[in-house]
Amino acid sequence: MSKIKFTALLLMAATISLPITVHSQEHPNLIMTKAGIEKVRKNLGTVPLFDASVASVQKEVDAEIALGIDTPIPKDFSGGYTHQRHKLNFIIAQKAGALYQILEDEKYAKYIKDMLFQYEAMYKTLPVHPQERSYARGKLFWQCLNDSNWLVYMSQAYDAIYDTLTKQERDTLENNLFRPFADFISIGNPQFYNRVHNHSTWGNAAVGMIALVMNDEELLQRALYGIEDDGLEIGGRDNDGGFIKVEGQKAGFLANLEDPFSPDGYYTEGPYYQRYAMYPFLIFGLAMHNVKPEMQVFEHKDNVLLKGVDALLNLSDADGEFFPLNDGQKGMSYYTASLVTAVDIAYQYGKQDPALLSIAEKQNNVLLNEAGLLVAMGIRDGKTQPFAKSSINLSDGPDGQQGGVAVLRYGNEDLTAVFKYAAQGLSHGHYDKLSYSLYEKGDEVLQDYGLARFVNIGQKGGGNYLKENKTWAKTTIAHNTLSQNEQMHFAGKYEIGSQHHSELYLYDDANENVQVVSATEANAYPGTHMHRTLAVIKSAGFEKPFLLDILKVNSDNKNQYDLPFYYMGQVLSNNFSYDSPAILKPLGKKNGYQHLYLEGKGQPATTSTQFSWLGNGKYYTLTSATDVSDELLLTRLGADDPDFNLRRDAAFMIRRKDSDNTVFASVIEPHGSYSPVSELSVNSDSHITELKVELDNNDYTAVSINDVQGNSKLFILSNNNAAPSKQHKLKVGSKTYSWRGTFHYTEM
Amino acid sequence: MSKIKFTALLLMAATISLPITVHSQEHPNLIMTKAGIEKVRKNLGTVPLFDASVASVQKEVDAEIALGIDTPIPKDFSGGYTHQRHKLNFIIAQKAGALYQILEDEKYAKYIKDMLFQYEAMYKTLPVHPQERSYARGKLFWQCLNDSNWLVYMSQAYDAIYDTLTKQERDTLENNLFRPFADFISIGNPQFYNRVHNHSTWGNAAVGMIALVMNDEELLQRALYGIEDDGLEIGGRDNDGGFIKVEGQKAGFLANLEDPFSPDGYYTEGPYYQRYAMYPFLIFGLAMHNVKPEMQVFEHKDNVLLKGVDALLNLSDADGEFFPLNDGQKGMSYYTASLVTAVDIAYQYGKQDPALLSIAEKQNNVLLNEAGLLVAMGIRDGKTQPFAKSSINLSDGPDGQQGGVAVLRYGNEDLTAVFKYAAQGLSHGHYDKLSYSLYEKGDEVLQDYGLARFVNIGQKGGGNYLKENKTWAKTTIAHNTLSQNEQMHFAGKYEIGSQHHSELYLYDDANENVQVVSATEANAYPGTHMHRTLAVIKSAGFEKPFLLDILKVNSDNKNQYDLPFYYMGQVLSNNFSYDSPAILKPLGKKNGYQHLYLEGKGQPATTSTQFSWLGNGKYYTLTSATDVSDELLLTRLGADDPDFNLRRDAAFMIRRKDSDNTVFASVIEPHGSYSPVSELSVNSDSHITELKVELDNNDYTAVSINDVQGNSKLFILSNNNAAPSKQHKLKVGSKTYSWRGTFHYTEM
Repeated sequence: MSKIKFTALLLMAATISLPITVHSQEHPNLIMTKAGIEKVRKNLGTVPLFDASVASVQKEVDAEIALGIDTPIPKDFSGGYTHQRHKLNFIIAQKAGALYQILEDEKYAKYIKDMLFQYEAMYKTLPVHPQERSYARGKLFWQCLNDSNWLVYMSQAYDAIYDTLTKQERDTLENNLFRPFADFISIGNPQFYNRVHNHSTWGNAAVGMIALVMNDEELLQRALYGIEDDGLEIGGRDNDGGFIKVEGQKAGFLANLEDPFSPDGYYTEGPYYQRYAMYPFLIFGLAMHNVKPEMQVFEHKDNVLLKGVDALLNLSDADGEFFPLNDGQKGMSYYTASLVTAVDIAYQYGKQDPALLSIAEKQNNVLLNEAGLLVAMGIRDGKTQPFAKSSINLSDGPDGQQGGVAVLRYGNEDLTAVFKYAAQGLSHGHYDKLSYSLYEKGDEVLQDYGLARFVNIGQKGGGNYLKENKTWAKTTIAHNTLSQNEQMHFAGKYEIGSQHHSELYLYDDANENVQVVSATEANAYPGTHMHRTLAVIKSAGFEKPFLLDILKVNSDNKNQYDLPFYYMGQVLSNNFSYDSPAILKPLGKKNGYQHLYLEGKGQPATTSTQFSWLGNGKYYTLTSATDVSDELLLTRLGADDPDFNLRRDAAFMIRRKDSDNTVFASVIEPHGSYSPVSELSVNSDSHITELKVELDNNDYTAVSINDVQGNSKLFILSNNNAAPSKQHKLKVGSKTYSWRGTFHYTEM
Repeated sequence: MSKIKFTALLLMAATISLPITVHSQEHPNLIMTKAGIEKVRKNLGTVPLFDASVASVQKEVDAEIALGIDTPIPKDFSGGYTHQRHKLNFIIAQKAGALYQILEDEKYAKYIKDMLFQYEAMYKTLPVHPQERSYARGKLFWQCLNDSNWLVYMSQAYDAIYDTLTKQERDTLENNLFRPFADFISIGNPQFYNRVHNHSTWGNAAVGMIALVMNDEELLQRALYGIEDDGLEIGGRDNDGGFIKVEGQKAGFLANLEDPFSPDGYYTEGPYYQRYAMYPFLIFGLAMHNVKPEMQVFEHKDNVLLKGVDALLNLSDADGEFFPLNDGQKGMSYYTASLVTAVDIAYQYGKQDPALLSIAEKQNNVLLNEAGLLVAMGIRDGKTQPFAKSSINLSDGPDGQQGGVAVLRYGNEDLTAVFKYAAQGLSHGHYDKLSYSLYEKGDEVLQDYGLARFVNIGQKGGGNYLKENKTWAKTTIAHNTLSQNEQMHFAGKYEIGSQHHSELYLYDDANENVQVVSATEANAYPGTHMHRTLAVIKSAGFEKPFLLDILKVNSDNKNQYDLPFYYMGQVLSNNFSYDSPAILKPLGKKNGYQHLYLEGKGQPATTSTQFSWLGNGKYYTLTSATDVSDELLLTRLGADDPDFNLRRDAAFMIRRKDSDNTVFASVIEPHGSYSPVSELSVNSDSHITELKVELDNNDYTAVSINDVQGNSKLFILSNNNAAPSKQHKLKVGSKTYSWRGTFHYTEM
């Protein structure tokens, strides 16, 4: 595991040499400071968005105070009452703390104090949580992760009212509640605490936050560097199948900051979990900045924390919803509370980028501290600039050498292709090398299914991961990428998948009208080499940009290849005939195939197969170069799903049997629109008449596209030399093309 | 057919006695008048919404002028180019006419003149349209209906530039184009023109509009009263299966105004077609008002035209989308252009209701005439009031005696139940007596499927009705109502269905917390009497209002009853066990059943069966009183649908076999919410613990609802006496209840 060598060295150095100064403590000191709060108080009533945020929080907290405090004996999973109640408690307490500091109204301090003492009375004798599902059970919640959430928030509440308590009261709380609590989630649960994982990040931050409030050096060391001798065996697994400890593993907050983030700020689990992990990262980062500025946590790894905020915002569609790469619940967006925190902190401690103000404006909510004040003042003072998302290529891996995720965007997110050629993504990763999803503005054109879970909805498996997450959502066939012989990439084995990553071949967004990303995957199916190239192209003869998708496969063996396209919408038309079975049967028996019904099966009628659909009032046509021996499958999800845990989504699938080396070349072409209000159907036909693989050998692949106006386009890729300076010369048909660089695109 | 006796008498009277004055003509005189246009010109630049509407139309028309005029030889169905082009021509010409009058820019007059002469040159020798599908083929379009659209709009364009043309030019256009055009769609196609049907309304208005421009008395008589001797045989059918001529039928615009509208302004085909028919009704009504005010068209039948606008607006959900009763395409809303016309005209010629201004404000567009100006001035001057939709009961039938449609609304459209107990609805009617749909704000909770058609989308059956409209959309099992022995109401026979209608039993919206509608149907299945009662109830212990649905069935025979609920969303949980088949088979062979797959089949585990789903971020639970012998079916649409013309929507269905007299009692209970952004799941459980039919006999049906707080509610309906003054006394269980009126609701 050479990837962590550098990390390890760096951390050893840190452990040995960095002096941690013990400041004389003042409170609050975590996310609010005395100076900051003075500034906030002084500006109250003059900054509209800040005032509105205070008023909104006040309304929420006052309503909870009126209901009274309830700290029930823990018993439920995440969908149940005791879980929800304890969760609400820490959220409201944190907010009440901010209100106390800002408004100086004693009732908020009293509310927190009363709640903390109820917890103190309960915690002393509280056994481990009765639900046994977790690999690391908490006490208040079914898993230590949620207990850590509690401590991250409660530390802030405690910090806010610290000065209102007597020494004796503080000692009681610290000795009976906070210190035992921190010990339980750390030394009590090293398998949870001492990892590189979003769980551990929460655990580390929780211990660190309370350490900073209590001025406890031992706990702070444990937060930053983990537990020295955790007694864990190498190779253990958590509930999601992720490794708990691997050889040479470091732990603690700094290791978690080092390892899952790439130098570009991409978080290896994907944006859904980055959004979740950002909160403890940034909140503890801010607390460290305030209490231990000499540690330079924000500046760590070339400002990776603040870069992470930018990366995360760029991993969202035009509506601000995060791309559901790996385990991601659709609909999660930058409107979520942790992103308010992230945007405000990134604004204050970054370059005060005025584009962040436009996100904050949409969020219509700011953090109740100095960062939130600064953001609200910036908006008030008209500094806002649009947050324009461009194409971006984000490396994966601690050193940025484990593949990545590229987002090609045309115009103002008119077309967005999200290409995944990343590492496994820890235990939340999917087996979907070289897959992609496609968006027109905020609408999915080709979807990534996301996770199979109803987060916090108790009726659905306690709100936890459903078994269909493993049997469907993680599988290869659930994604817009190649399945070979109905197997999953890496045989669906985490220990194999986590050793490999795809390799970037080319990324070029210099010309907005021809943007290209290309990557290879050599390990997903041993003996098979995949090379996929996506090009977002805007051609003058076409109303909208389209996506050219070239997937070149070379294998030592003859295989069956399945390439699905999970289109979103209703079938409109196609140029092939198919049989439509009277009864629906599953397409296969395992690896996700058992969940797909076969709704139609046909053969190409021409060498350019077309398939059109209507989705969200817009037309789309897939044109693909097909062989007569190909099978064209129309599938629908929902087989072997007795609990209705899966959506009834459809796919168009090209099946090519008995093939070793082949190319799948396709265009996804958005065109026209339909309005049920005007009932006007505009430009409902594809502009493409033919798509052809003109040439394909070891060195080059050339694909031509002919359109209804009689024009022709040609895209040539150099398969084995990506050097931008390389001169190429190639005869395709009767013409010879010369160019410099990895690809050549021409219109005739 | 006694229903038309009154109509016939009235129309005969009209034909005989009303003198039609021939005014000295001035132009424009149809939807614009000289005086009106003066007022418009004088206020230009001072009325923001009017100015914006002019600017928007100008941009659209200027772009078309820049493209040049194209009048292609007709060949396509409604999805094709020639259809779309001719349609756009008449729309743009009408708008150019308005611009010419308002802006006095000659280029608009020239554009219309050039276009009209291109049509004149083409029309002289134009054969009937080559597509043969219609019972009344047009010349420019595949059906006379669209030719009539053309003439309604082109009459306005011609009117606008009338004074710019020489006498000779006018003679050429009138002799070679307009008069032959009017003759072709009327005396050339009496089977289209001489009916009571939305087709004929367009035809009549078209002939009438051009008559008013040309000052042609013969054509005007033909428009108002139809063709005296049409030579049509009794009993002929159109493409939709509708009757062309029935015994004693009158024709012409006034008959069309008389017959399909109820005195409440409900249009018997339903809101989707009312929206379509409103335009010719109101435009020709306005033209008549301007040219022949003595005919009092707006005042006809107690202002039924303007009442119709109000009825139509009330037949929309919280987003302004019309309820898709009968053949209705979902998504059609009051944002459509014909509703801009309707709202503006209704404002000027009605009571200048300030609530209409809020609709106009949402439409963000006004008519380019005096009515539009008045609306825009009202908005400018701050007169706008909210258009608050309340519960409403609209009678059906020319005399209001053929059943109706009731809409029960709670709060600000927080819950809306749309109950259909109407007449057949002419050829666009569905076989769905006593069916209903349910909305929470603008979201469907239980859906009405609407039509099976992709209007104007050529790829889908030429944009016309698909065969699945007949095999699925019109069938009884496609609706939230009772299917007996897998048969359709009236055996799916239009000639039987159109002789009958349901009967209102009770409508009472006096108490917002307990609103009730109840109706009976005795003819849908001979020998079977259905009595359905819906109550929208807001109980203090419940977060949201719920719907109580009691369907009492009495039959001379033992039958199989199927009662489906077309819920919108994903299954969450249920309290019964079911088998989940590995392969999906159709539920039946015909009457719509051939389109349903059986996804699950179970039996009740308790006497109160519960079924929950999550839709649009909100939770819903159906609780129904069930017998152990009931079958509980989970179905999904999509069988026998090789062209993917149907949506893959689901239903929960209660099947009760071998029953004669029985009661289906259910509650549809909206509760809580889920946000994928906050991931908070709130109130996801039903509040209901038990629902029980406490008593059911000829005279009374009593249903109890117990909730989780231990409270109980009782709803008693008097089945045979709806008199509001009637005193009732009834023992239910051990308690005796006394009340006055048709129903009694009590909470304990």
